[in-house]
Amino acid sequence: MAIPVQTFFLHPGATGTLQARIQQMVAEGVLSGRLRRGEKMPSTRALARHLGVSRLTVALAYTELLASDYLTSRQRSGHFISENAPAPAGFPPAARQERVDWARAIGQRFAGGAVPERPQDWASYRYPFIYGQTDPQLFDHASWRLCAVQALGARDFRAMTQDYYDRDDPELVEFITRQTLPRRGISARPEEVLITLGAQNALWLAAQVLLTPERTAALEDPGYPALRAILAQTRCRIAPVAVDAQGLPPEAIPDGTGVIFTAPSHQCPTSATLPMARREALLARARALDAIVVEDDYEFEMAYLTPALPALKSLDPDGRVVHVGSFSKSLFPGLRLGYLVGSEPFIREARALRAAVFRHPPGHVQRTAAHFLRLGHHDSLVRRIGRALTERRAVMEAEIARAGLTIAGVGAHGGSSFWMMAPPGIDTGALAETLRADSVLIEPGAPFFLRPDPPRGHYRLGYTSIPTDRIGPGITRIAEALARARGRG
Amino acid sequence: MAIPVQTFFLHPGATGTLQARIQQMVAEGVLSGRLRRGEKMPSTRALARHLGVSRLTVALAYTELLASDYLTSRQRSGHFISENAPAPAGFPPAARQERVDWARAIGQRFAGGAVPERPQDWASYRYPFIYGQTDPQLFDHASWRLCAVQALGARDFRAMTQDYYDRDDPELVEFITRQTLPRRGISARPEEVLITLGAQNALWLAAQVLLTPERTAALEDPGYPALRAILAQTRCRIAPVAVDAQGLPPEAIPDGTGVIFTAPSHQCPTSATLPMARREALLARARALDAIVVEDDYEFEMAYLTPALPALKSLDPDGRVVHVGSFSKSLFPGLRLGYLVGSEPFIREARALRAAVFRHPPGHVQRTAAHFLRLGHHDSLVRRIGRALTERRAVMEAEIARAGLTIAGVGAHGGSSFWMMAPPGIDTGALAETLRADSVLIEPGAPFFLRPDPPRGHYRLGYTSIPTDRIGPGITRIAEALARARGRG
Repeated sequence: MAIPVQTFFLHPGATGTLQARIQQMVAEGVLSGRLRRGEKMPSTRALARHLGVSRLTVALAYTELLASDYLTSRQRSGHFISENAPAPAGFPPAARQERVDWARAIGQRFAGGAVPERPQDWASYRYPFIYGQTDPQLFDHASWRLCAVQALGARDFRAMTQDYYDRDDPELVEFITRQTLPRRGISARPEEVLITLGAQNALWLAAQVLLTPERTAALEDPGYPALRAILAQTRCRIAPVAVDAQGLPPEAIPDGTGVIFTAPSHQCPTSATLPMARREALLARARALDAIVVEDDYEFEMAYLTPALPALKSLDPDGRVVHVGSFSKSLFPGLRLGYLVGSEPFIREARALRAAVFRHPPGHVQRTAAHFLRLGHHDSLVRRIGRALTERRAVMEAEIARAGLTIAGVGAHGGSSFWMMAPPGIDTGALAETLRADSVLIEPGAPFFLRPDPPRGHYRLGYTSIPTDRIGPGITRIAEALARARGRG
Repeated sequence: MAIPVQTFFLHPGATGTLQARIQQMVAEGVLSGRLRRGEKMPSTRALARHLGVSRLTVALAYTELLASDYLTSRQRSGHFISENAPAPAGFPPAARQERVDWARAIGQRFAGGAVPERPQDWASYRYPFIYGQTDPQLFDHASWRLCAVQALGARDFRAMTQDYYDRDDPELVEFITRQTLPRRGISARPEEVLITLGAQNALWLAAQVLLTPERTAALEDPGYPALRAILAQTRCRIAPVAVDAQGLPPEAIPDGTGVIFTAPSHQCPTSATLPMARREALLARARALDAIVVEDDYEFEMAYLTPALPALKSLDPDGRVVHVGSFSKSLFPGLRLGYLVGSEPFIREARALRAAVFRHPPGHVQRTAAHFLRLGHHDSLVRRIGRALTERRAVMEAEIARAGLTIAGVGAHGGSSFWMMAPPGIDTGALAETLRADSVLIEPGAPFFLRPDPPRGHYRLGYTSIPTDRIGPGITRIAEALARARGRG
């Protein structure tokens, strides 16, 4: 590779002759790892012109660098970083000496929160019972590509490249209001919709607008771990509410709650679906508390066994439900595309906050999704995923029963995971470690709990990313590991 | 268009016969504007199966809807929303009755900040002297498209679709550390770089990590208006520092300042470039204050007249400079891609905050930019933009001189705008309104100032988006409007 001449820079403040400074510049580049062995240096003429020095100065510097074996020259093809050049130091060059006390300079700390349990290289495991990743076999890659190319076309170019400031792609918003939300029973105007960078971002925006250190947020326990990191930033008070097999019990939401966070379609991680009667009761409780409900409509489109129940938002004439939707699960997580639906005064604040934080989700991503949705590809993708998961889920159920494992929670309409319970005395954190060595990935349950001394016996088995024919052998390995752990216990 | 059957929904809580509820559902859809005249209804068979009711019930409902002219039927092709169906009400259906006191429910307010002066339909004006939008004629659309398609290819698919959690695309980070930052004289390791959703997002993250209500931020006055909205959220104290023709005077930064925000390459809006001596003095002042400097390396790539000076970050052995870069200006604003460079403890906190707020910028956008940069398209684009702007800037200078207008500030290395001064007594806010009616867009200067009673005589003329042959006539119109305003004044 040729090293672009623009990457060379003489620091005006440096001392020494021009020639020495050029030599030092190259040597530092090699030692810092920026210039690599075998890469082609600019010609003496080009470098001289770029640096504004005489060509002779550069030629003399190159000669010295040849002598010290930083460079080699090849007949008629110029100078290259030598294969014998010193290896990069592996630490920052000596000139850098950190003089800032970052423990003091950092005003607010955010690091140290929940870290995902899933290894980055999950795809290299044979039995990945993990949650929420795309199965590349199911995704309609060709159609997505066509939509992306269309969104890159001349007609859409202006829409894609303009800075919307605080606006969204009108085509995507229109599709969501006219096609997506009606499937959840929700009728909303464009002013009541805000596009977000996935559900995570939607929950973050809602929390920032609605909460203060004086307000109390009711959270499902166990629940979505990332929500805690989000709420930590608002410094609000947190009221954990234990969920049961039917999800969040409305009567258990304490007095004084200002905002209720719930995932009624598919509770995370127990998979419970909030029944219709509880939906009505939850809204009545919110009305009595004069509280706002933030509905994370998590995995509603994974209702492939029975139709999804209407969203809480659809049952809410008061405007007290803020609805969070996402395309990250049904398209792919790296897409980072979701939406908030709520009353106009709320959306106005969330939009202003979004404008300050990052303005808007990239225009091209919004327009690509709009085309994909409009052409019906999303619908067929959801149907295809539903068919595949119906099959996998049946295999999961059969294999779990065969192996004698215990299901603790399961979605009424489908979903993509089982919430499991290990026999008494088994710590699923240790179990997950053991299984990992056997190329099996499971998710320990403890990180989902809010309580200080969480139960250690739960685990979650996702089936979006494991091929059907590996489910049986994978479940067998889990059962064997459990038997060994009990034998030792 | 055929209306998908999935968008129909019977609210379980509703009263009335099934047939009446189906009629009401369709009528409400029409009145809310969701179902539009001429759209095709699902067949009675499909709707009956979807709703789980008998086909006869649906057929009877359709008959009633035909009678009330909500629907029409066409021989052999089914039912359609009638062309005589009632028009949408233009207000939410009566069932929605907002019962939330949002003045109370909103915990934190974000709306009401600086609104951009630029009209959304700027492209329809003949003389748009606006700032920061892409000229579609200059952008290398074909190459960007190829890179996007490559990033959508099978090889990159996993990289694009995976949820990185808090990581970035390693290919983009590598390019930035090895190719982009060296052009600014900066050497950084991948752990010292964080990809952001544009410069706005980078500044927001830095402000959140570094500032608290007890700390003081020094800001350039006049300065980048969006920075004030960002800092408002940290509730920090703000020390405005008046800039002069050479940018921020380091000696004027008050004692007690904890964080200094500056745009040394191209001050916004005065276009001033911080000279080398001031760069050294600024770092010395920061060292004396033990302050952090946030360097917005705004428009460094627009140095087409003389090479850019090295970034502050490159002159900083202490690690006290946080560097903000962006591809939004040199590629296109809707891309929303930038980066933060800083010491590892700082980047770690910014990364954790980013993970809570939105996880990471979309993978596909990162990978597309990585390809575009790696293949050298960005370099040639910057060169092409530089050539075009050199020409336009010369025409601007000649026309401004010819028309007798006064330049108040100009970038030493190039840039894309002039900071102008109207004759005494003229309010450029009113001037901009007058010119707008004449199809000329200029930016009034007052919104850039921090002081409570800002001077009203400045305005900014951008030349990225106006064709060269329209510059002369546009400047003439500005001069005429100024002459008329003085005649009245």
